[in-house]
Amino acid sequence: MTTSTTTSADDRWVEVVEVGTRDGLQIETTIVPTARKIEIVNAMIESGISQIEVTSFVSPKAVPQLADAAEVIDGVRRRPDTYLMALAPNLRAADRAAETSLDGGVLLCSASETHNRKNLNRSIDESIEGFAAVAERLRAAKIDVLGGMAVVFGCPFEGDVDLASVTRIAQAYVDLGVDHITLGDTTGMATPTNIRRVVRALKSSFPQVEFSLHLHNTRGIGLANAVVGLEEGIRRFDSSVGGLGGCPFAAGATGNICTEDLVFLLQESGYETGIDLAKAIEVAHEMERALGKSLSGQVMRAGPRLKLHAADAVRTAAG
Amino acid sequence: MTTSTTTSADDRWVEVVEVGTRDGLQIETTIVPTARKIEIVNAMIESGISQIEVTSFVSPKAVPQLADAAEVIDGVRRRPDTYLMALAPNLRAADRAAETSLDGGVLLCSASETHNRKNLNRSIDESIEGFAAVAERLRAAKIDVLGGMAVVFGCPFEGDVDLASVTRIAQAYVDLGVDHITLGDTTGMATPTNIRRVVRALKSSFPQVEFSLHLHNTRGIGLANAVVGLEEGIRRFDSSVGGLGGCPFAAGATGNICTEDLVFLLQESGYETGIDLAKAIEVAHEMERALGKSLSGQVMRAGPRLKLHAADAVRTAAG
Repeated sequence: MTTSTTTSADDRWVEVVEVGTRDGLQIETTIVPTARKIEIVNAMIESGISQIEVTSFVSPKAVPQLADAAEVIDGVRRRPDTYLMALAPNLRAADRAAETSLDGGVLLCSASETHNRKNLNRSIDESIEGFAAVAERLRAAKIDVLGGMAVVFGCPFEGDVDLASVTRIAQAYVDLGVDHITLGDTTGMATPTNIRRVVRALKSSFPQVEFSLHLHNTRGIGLANAVVGLEEGIRRFDSSVGGLGGCPFAAGATGNICTEDLVFLLQESGYETGIDLAKAIEVAHEMERALGKSLSGQVMRAGPRLKLHAADAVRTAAG
Repeated sequence: MTTSTTTSADDRWVEVVEVGTRDGLQIETTIVPTARKIEIVNAMIESGISQIEVTSFVSPKAVPQLADAAEVIDGVRRRPDTYLMALAPNLRAADRAAETSLDGGVLLCSASETHNRKNLNRSIDESIEGFAAVAERLRAAKIDVLGGMAVVFGCPFEGDVDLASVTRIAQAYVDLGVDHITLGDTTGMATPTNIRRVVRALKSSFPQVEFSLHLHNTRGIGLANAVVGLEEGIRRFDSSVGGLGGCPFAAGATGNICTEDLVFLLQESGYETGIDLAKAIEVAHEMERALGKSLSGQVMRAGPRLKLHAADAVRTAAG
């Protein structure tokens, strides 16, 4: 598959995968019109983001916000390096995806039984058994297959998640020929300690797989966890424009780690992303206008670091 | 001096210094009544916070929010380990502090000329020359002298700050017998790169000094910077209840790193703080009520990590 430019050739390159129009919009009450979504995705691409998990082929009845999955995928103005992904957690999803120009279909399974049953209405065993048919359907349509795993770092129902469960699902993906697996911190329960433990174990067991981190900022430490992930060799992170999204388990909690804040952190830590921060900030403001509400991103408020102020323009208080 | 229990004996102990009632309240338009402030500081102490920069002896005309500095300091219900600090940037401040039960007076100088002139109305040389008299006045009243430095990691007027300027001010403090210096990221311009550079240089030049980090979350990476600080051996951080505060250079930007989120990060990274997270969250909600507005803290919304949910209580969307 061709999802990643993150080879060992350049350890300073980090792939930022935008998931705002998928993980963010699915929880918003406002339904953004299809044409507006496409404009926003086009602007993301213009800002230098090449990998976008743009939507999800879940039931339009369950998630009406993403009912236009096919139209959005086919409506985007691509660049040569654009790579569009979507969740395709079952056969019906794969069938819908197969009719589009999608590049990568993401399978899904939760690392805890209760969350998997709640989210996908089946056991982990049943999910794993179903992978092959979905993968076959996607590949027949020349769509790459990627692995997605939810609640890897903690489950809101079960608490800490057994590493054996995570490893079992990773092994199932590997058996399927998947070489890219996203580790989802679905409800913001990742910590420096469990990120180190899980990433080290998985990289040791599956050295051929590229693991990426899908972090939420539910408890404020999303980017602190990203720093730990970088130290453990992770070079691919999901994030959402403006920090869009939320958490069904915590009213008022923020969503995914914020794309612009992540890009700022990476740039200021000496990594390359290929993303123009000023343009990414513009996309975040455009998303605010589309939703008619403020997002939780910080760099979009404060601006880049070296935006200097005239000394006579601002009164400060000591300290 | 006795400000710190962070000796080399226990590398896993991190001192969390609460600065919300100083750095946070000074920028709020709402003036919190003195009795309410004292209640809040008492609740901080009850939560296990022992080091509090409780107020500032700046001009009551310039900062009316802190005009009650003396009453607050003397009104607090102390525990044996309680250590109260306040900014005392000039002789008049030291005189006012000397009349109170203050434990530590914090001198102040900005690492950039423009910010120092803007904030304290004098040059860096003039600030340094003034240190001795202020320190003498404080010590005569049996108040410890601590060093504070603003805009260490970047100045909103001048941009990047010369390390030589930071070192010169640190040397002035050391010459004064100060063994504790706080490095202020006053407007959120610290990055992993400049934190590593500055902390390494200072710890190498002044191995006898304990440096602490005063980080702001203006650009979303405050706790990511804290992780880097921990890695560089920093064991003392300023933070504010609920992430209270803001930035005079960025409307809508958040303030200091948030106490509860920092405590959560530290606990989940294997550090000890002596702080009861649930009680710290209660203090943040109390501060919200006192100000009549929502604060930006995240753990106060989402709750502790292992607050489990009943599987039938919440509907989730795939992913």
